[in-house]
Amino acid sequence: MIKNTHIASAFDRDLEAIQAQIMKMGGMVEEAIENASKALVDGDTELAIATRRADKAIDLLEEKVNEEAARVIALRQPIATDLRTVLTVFRISAALERVGDYAKNIAKRSEILQDLHQVEGGAASLKRMSKAVQMMLKDALDAYIQRDVALAADVRARDEEVDQMYNALFREYLTHMMEDPRNITACMHLHFMAKNIERMGDLVTGICEQVIYLVTGELPDEDRTKADITSTAKGGTVN
Amino acid sequence: MIKNTHIASAFDRDLEAIQAQIMKMGGMVEEAIENASKALVDGDTELAIATRRADKAIDLLEEKVNEEAARVIALRQPIATDLRTVLTVFRISAALERVGDYAKNIAKRSEILQDLHQVEGGAASLKRMSKAVQMMLKDALDAYIQRDVALAADVRARDEEVDQMYNALFREYLTHMMEDPRNITACMHLHFMAKNIERMGDLVTGICEQVIYLVTGELPDEDRTKADITSTAKGGTVN
Repeated sequence: MIKNTHIASAFDRDLEAIQAQIMKMGGMVEEAIENASKALVDGDTELAIATRRADKAIDLLEEKVNEEAARVIALRQPIATDLRTVLTVFRISAALERVGDYAKNIAKRSEILQDLHQVEGGAASLKRMSKAVQMMLKDALDAYIQRDVALAADVRARDEEVDQMYNALFREYLTHMMEDPRNITACMHLHFMAKNIERMGDLVTGICEQVIYLVTGELPDEDRTKADITSTAKGGTVN
Repeated sequence: MIKNTHIASAFDRDLEAIQAQIMKMGGMVEEAIENASKALVDGDTELAIATRRADKAIDLLEEKVNEEAARVIALRQPIATDLRTVLTVFRISAALERVGDYAKNIAKRSEILQDLHQVEGGAASLKRMSKAVQMMLKDALDAYIQRDVALAADVRARDEEVDQMYNALFREYLTHMMEDPRNITACMHLHFMAKNIERMGDLVTGICEQVIYLVTGELPDEDRTKADITSTAKGGTVN
């Protein structure tokens, strides 16, 4: 998998084992995103609780991956490209752990929303945004395991769409709040959920940048258009 | 500094140099928190812009610290406790970089707030919360450089107060929004700023946990009372 040009070394075998753990962790995080979104849309409290609980396993796997990576550094003492490859493991597992945390937070807020004034269409837009990020994560993991720079660059570009979805939601929720004060509390939570998903997209983008770094030795420029404009825009119609 | 019991090895000297960089980075992040808060309270757009720009230097220093740490692993091939110490460098520099990002975001939102309907007392409460986190960071860095577990545990406990301040602000802003729709947009931004500060507190807590791990070899239990209840509370008076 890692190097086809020579017989796998002990280091390569160790690294493959760690990467397999990262893929497992990634699969668990994808599932967490899917379930958090489903729990929200279906108003499924049991699924929300299960999603929150499942995050513990993701955290434990991150610890295990980091310990394994440290063990490989200590034991195999890799240098140059091999060292870079192991160091990337820390960054990718940290990013996955944080995406998992956001999914947990979304599940938590979905439970609260059940008891609040329902905002029409509030969950449906979030679901689309969540699905987009979930697909980005899936492709980012494929790009990682296949060292596919083109795919990584493609996923990175797709984050702009997620940012645009977030901007649209920001305005939508502000409008709901202004129209009817009974929407305010629910919209605050929906808003935080949208922001969480937007941040997940940023983290997945970070994974793709690590893949590009792994293969090319350079991090891509920050020239990607940053399309979350809400933190610089005045927003809404009230000034 | 690191080990007083024997003559400093090449590894110790390398590590001290890296730790000096981390302290420098920490100082820059403390300043960013201070300036972002000042820019908000004084309505000082120039300071806000300067704070945003200064974040670039923090990011570059993080990259430098990580490269140095990787170089030390490759060159000195540390094992056991020494390896653990170097790996902690990655986590602490990553946490500092993220705190810096939150300060940048606060500075950005403070610029927008200038043009929005002013919310009475909105900035003052944020300033207190920001100051508390800034002091936590200062002490966390002292705990790191002195390997002071008691101080690290103390800072960790103080994060609960920050969480409580956040809970109070959550309710305060909801109330403002319900009382006067002209407050809604500004309160959304104030709210995100409060959440950013609350997250800074979590990251500083994470640094303290790394210090405890460094000295004792074990991460503390997650028994710290998690006092941000807004993501599970119904909040406000509207249901």
